[in-house]
Amino acid sequence: MNACVLYSGGKDSSIIAFILNKLGYDVELVTVNFGMYPSWKPAAESASKIGFKHRVLKAETDVLKSAVETIINDGFPNNGINHLHKYALELAANDYGVVADGTRRDDKIPKLKLNEVRSFEDRNNVEYINLGGFGHKSINHLSKTLFEVKKELTNMDNNSDYEIEIRYLISELEGEGTAFKIFPEHLQSRVIGWRENE
Amino acid sequence: MNACVLYSGGKDSSIIAFILNKLGYDVELVTVNFGMYPSWKPAAESASKIGFKHRVLKAETDVLKSAVETIINDGFPNNGINHLHKYALELAANDYGVVADGTRRDDKIPKLKLNEVRSFEDRNNVEYINLGGFGHKSINHLSKTLFEVKKELTNMDNNSDYEIEIRYLISELEGEGTAFKIFPEHLQSRVIGWRENE
Repeated sequence: MNACVLYSGGKDSSIIAFILNKLGYDVELVTVNFGMYPSWKPAAESASKIGFKHRVLKAETDVLKSAVETIINDGFPNNGINHLHKYALELAANDYGVVADGTRRDDKIPKLKLNEVRSFEDRNNVEYINLGGFGHKSINHLSKTLFEVKKELTNMDNNSDYEIEIRYLISELEGEGTAFKIFPEHLQSRVIGWRENE
Repeated sequence: MNACVLYSGGKDSSIIAFILNKLGYDVELVTVNFGMYPSWKPAAESASKIGFKHRVLKAETDVLKSAVETIINDGFPNNGINHLHKYALELAANDYGVVADGTRRDDKIPKLKLNEVRSFEDRNNVEYINLGGFGHKSINHLSKTLFEVKKELTNMDNNSDYEIEIRYLISELEGEGTAFKIFPEHLQSRVIGWRENE
């Protein structure tokens, strides 16, 4: 069965891709892009390094604009990011019978509530799968076992999270200072290959 | 790394065992028994049919007695079963660095709350893993792909759930009528082998 994983190149979305592949799904890694900045490139590179098909799903720039408006009004990114993630899931559900992402047990954002999961599955007639059975200790341990990972300060060209296009648009609208206030500098990990001979 | 799966022989605990095995854990299937009735036997048979090590972990009969007291007072099994499951997890945590079970996203009983999961992991210095990322649609689909499954009415000798020893003790104490009121007849599935050439 065809399954897509919403993919950022990080360890979480890479682990769920690995699991689904082992479970026998035909896995495609998908990065949604809102047409503002080619932030899908690092994800495509990670996908290629671990031998998965990768695809960019083009989304409406207006959806990003509306999320950024929310984020600027809120002064923090959570609601805007959740909005983009839900939109991305719906978009993916047009093309796949199984839609997955790297959300873990202890993640807060982006995350669907249980009733939102049920509604998403029922309205779209899809299966939704994530890493909800795994906590951060297991994820860190698995990531070390499975992948070569590069850890560095996030910048515009080493990260495929929603954050990048959001930052780009906030910088355009309000200047870089506002963008850095909403997304302070932080370390991020990117998968750059298999650890052993997987 | 050594991982144990609390194992009933059903599809859920068989799927998490499959996943952990593919993730590189050294998996042992464990059925907790409270010394009242040898209800671990069907689980041991399922484990052997899919080629996993199986082990019976002996637990205090008093814990079962106290849970059955709760269940008779409540008139329904949920709280008693949850109590036994938490006890089983703690027991397993003495011997394994990773403790897993087949709890799915949409399960209600037995299930740990998020704060109980954190407390369990921290107190015992273990990882807890379950099927929290998978809903019933995905589980049914995966079970069909992976396993030969036998579906039949539950009886005392084809099921390794906590239910069996609870029923045995309730029947002793209150008679079979009470046992059947608390656990009405129901269909259950048991894994009896791999589907293809896994």
